[in-house]
Amino acid sequence: MVLNYRAVFKLIGIITLLLAGFMLPPLFVSLYYGEAAAAEAFIRTIVPMLIIGALITLLVKADFNHLKIRDGYVTVALCWTLASVLGAVPFVISGYIPNFIDAFFETVSGFTTTGASILADVEVLPKGLLFWRSFTHWIGGMGIIVFAIALLPMLGISGQRIARAEVTGPLFGKLTPKLTDSSKILYMIYIGMTVLEILFLMLGGMGPFDSMIHTFGSVGTGGFSNYNAGVAHFDNPYYELVIGIFMILAGINFTLYYYILRRHWRDFFSDNELRCYLIIFSSAVVLIALNLWMSGTCGTIWQSLRHSFFQSASILTTTGFASMNFDLWPSFSKMILFILMFIGGCSFSAAGGMKVVRFALLLKLIRRGIAIRLHPKAVISIKLNGKPIPADTVSAAVNFVFLYFGVFFTGMILLSLENHDPITTASAVAACLGNVGHGFGLVGPMVNYGLFTDASTLMLAVIMLIGRLELFTIILLFTRQFWNPDR
Amino acid sequence: MVLNYRAVFKLIGIITLLLAGFMLPPLFVSLYYGEAAAAEAFIRTIVPMLIIGALITLLVKADFNHLKIRDGYVTVALCWTLASVLGAVPFVISGYIPNFIDAFFETVSGFTTTGASILADVEVLPKGLLFWRSFTHWIGGMGIIVFAIALLPMLGISGQRIARAEVTGPLFGKLTPKLTDSSKILYMIYIGMTVLEILFLMLGGMGPFDSMIHTFGSVGTGGFSNYNAGVAHFDNPYYELVIGIFMILAGINFTLYYYILRRHWRDFFSDNELRCYLIIFSSAVVLIALNLWMSGTCGTIWQSLRHSFFQSASILTTTGFASMNFDLWPSFSKMILFILMFIGGCSFSAAGGMKVVRFALLLKLIRRGIAIRLHPKAVISIKLNGKPIPADTVSAAVNFVFLYFGVFFTGMILLSLENHDPITTASAVAACLGNVGHGFGLVGPMVNYGLFTDASTLMLAVIMLIGRLELFTIILLFTRQFWNPDR
Repeated sequence: MVLNYRAVFKLIGIITLLLAGFMLPPLFVSLYYGEAAAAEAFIRTIVPMLIIGALITLLVKADFNHLKIRDGYVTVALCWTLASVLGAVPFVISGYIPNFIDAFFETVSGFTTTGASILADVEVLPKGLLFWRSFTHWIGGMGIIVFAIALLPMLGISGQRIARAEVTGPLFGKLTPKLTDSSKILYMIYIGMTVLEILFLMLGGMGPFDSMIHTFGSVGTGGFSNYNAGVAHFDNPYYELVIGIFMILAGINFTLYYYILRRHWRDFFSDNELRCYLIIFSSAVVLIALNLWMSGTCGTIWQSLRHSFFQSASILTTTGFASMNFDLWPSFSKMILFILMFIGGCSFSAAGGMKVVRFALLLKLIRRGIAIRLHPKAVISIKLNGKPIPADTVSAAVNFVFLYFGVFFTGMILLSLENHDPITTASAVAACLGNVGHGFGLVGPMVNYGLFTDASTLMLAVIMLIGRLELFTIILLFTRQFWNPDR
Repeated sequence: MVLNYRAVFKLIGIITLLLAGFMLPPLFVSLYYGEAAAAEAFIRTIVPMLIIGALITLLVKADFNHLKIRDGYVTVALCWTLASVLGAVPFVISGYIPNFIDAFFETVSGFTTTGASILADVEVLPKGLLFWRSFTHWIGGMGIIVFAIALLPMLGISGQRIARAEVTGPLFGKLTPKLTDSSKILYMIYIGMTVLEILFLMLGGMGPFDSMIHTFGSVGTGGFSNYNAGVAHFDNPYYELVIGIFMILAGINFTLYYYILRRHWRDFFSDNELRCYLIIFSSAVVLIALNLWMSGTCGTIWQSLRHSFFQSASILTTTGFASMNFDLWPSFSKMILFILMFIGGCSFSAAGGMKVVRFALLLKLIRRGIAIRLHPKAVISIKLNGKPIPADTVSAAVNFVFLYFGVFFTGMILLSLENHDPITTASAVAACLGNVGHGFGLVGPMVNYGLFTDASTLMLAVIMLIGRLELFTIILLFTRQFWNPDR
């Protein structure tokens, strides 16, 4: 058999239960604010999910000890699709996003921490739906499966096979011998970070609801806001500083925080990817600030630095929040932001994009290539954190980068059939693939994705999933090789 | 010593003589048409070149049998720069392009077969200068050094080291045991093709001068015309068909024509790169024709096919001729043309771009990457023409692609400081790096490169050289490793 259908089916049942559980907080929010329509929509979604999920979980007998690589890919791809389909239901039932494809896009955008919205006016949505929309960022940031593994030690060694299809970055780091413990530690760090940001925002005077929404958007690197103008709505440098810092923190490899918890400061600060990430970030901040200042876009150098700091953090971590309409910035600044969209955050973080470690590998490869031209017989290894990287890891990273650009160009060609300007087309695909959310032109920070046809909306949703699940998890399912066990 | 300075110096003397020789045909054209200013400009350039070139060649004693890889890179880089500097002199002296940087840009654009022009009105130029401008395409198409090797058997085995820095493509194919014979054969094929196209154009009624200009532009894959509207000036489907076919022929690996000469038809048609090239070309023709037809851009399906055929041939072979203003085409067609700019022609052809073989390798790598995800322990080799490609060749091609995009993004960031729209910026850099010439927006087919500052003009000229000499020849010279012999 190609797949372990029973195990995959049972896991889907479990995830359905889990998702029903995740919908309880937004239901409570709806009830708290007395929003009858939203509360009803949540109840009508949760109850069937609980019943079906429980039936599958109880009735299907499956052995999780024999899950193969294929099972992992299928489970993760199905879970994320299912989560997005089920998560879209409250939007449709409540009537706030009547078109199912639009609601699906919005939910995929939530779970994949993209933050692209088809809504022209988010402020009319009930608080319960706004909470759910942003809560999907929080869930997606650390991963649905990683959460399941934290809860379900029974997944055992097979859990790793599944988790590998969900986590980001080329290397799969285990913190502790037991995967379920690692997942628990990761979620504890994530929850700690979330609580801290909410507190910091509230200390500055932001209301509790707004604080939660913007915290989910930043620690999940998502970018949904409950205001049409996003973070620019507040025009508050303190909020921007807090959100900016937490976005940067969420873009760091979470396993590194474990070093801090264990007081291994040197391991933290000597990490090559982290250093590269901070260098890219600070270079972008300085270059954009100079460009904004010299072109007279933002007034003083301090104002330029303020917006350059926030926007670089937001785009590099693929969050997509905007402190002002950066689509009006000079070309040079926009070009740098566009390139940051592709680089993205660190591996094993909440951020999207190609990941800094792959970008660093790429630069090291180019450097080696130049050396080899002069000394054709030299054997030069590519090192990371002082250790040589195995050739197959390098080759997998190279492949990833090629495939990433392959998806980008394919998406761009297909989307160009809508005949929008090339900037809108290119940046919409780049922003969806990198899980950034906002691009330039007609998908700039002050506009939305409502302009596309249903076909393109669906394609962009798939591209967001492809980007979040690091290409292969989705793309493999569309290959002949995957379904033919003899090859 | 880092370099064999004597040999490099002597070779430069020889190339100076050669270039003086290449300026004789345009001088004769000027004299024939009685253009005193142009003729004087050529004479004032040729005479000092002959004297200095002869002195260096006669007085410098050098041993060509001990040229190293470094010497090859330096010689080729210097020769091309020198050719562009000397070739620019007649434009400056005659007063038709008074700014030296502009004249340098125009000549680099000629030799690198780019075809980008800073001239708003080419029709005011004397015929002698127009001839020289297009003749540089013809010289650059097959290569200055390859020509020198054909003439100078004394370069012997070291010639290969030099030629390697000039020829295009990842594999260096020798037709015959002696390089000088191979070069002669290549140039004979090239001359045959040139004569044939001139005849075909004249048969259709084009004047001899116009025929030569447009033949140089097409067999060299350059794109300079003596009319402001380029090929669109004639609005003649027969001319477009002839020019289109010869552009496609010039974009094919020239060593394959040797198979035809020896009647090895099977070797010709089974070549993987050629097949891939033809598949890319025909797919582009069909997709663009359908898009033009369905969007009502070009009228009938035949008119759509006519322009789609010509434009796909022109952009894929990086020639840059235009049969109509393709910048007004729908987004989908423009997106395909933009991607063709990056792919380019076949290796060892007159065309630029990344080359089809590297693009094919890239697709094979992606395919292998997907297979390896499912079978992590499988060993799958990358094959070309039925033979596995050595790992270091694959890795060099991968490096090339990364460096290509590295130069593209760097150029784009620098050019964006001019604050033009992103389409102009991106397509100007892509068109110069790929030696295409025309891009979109302000550097579209009906406009020119006159809008940039001197600094950007110079940078784009360097990018054209980087592209023509396949990145490393120029980039290596700017690395510390190159000048430090101990590394």
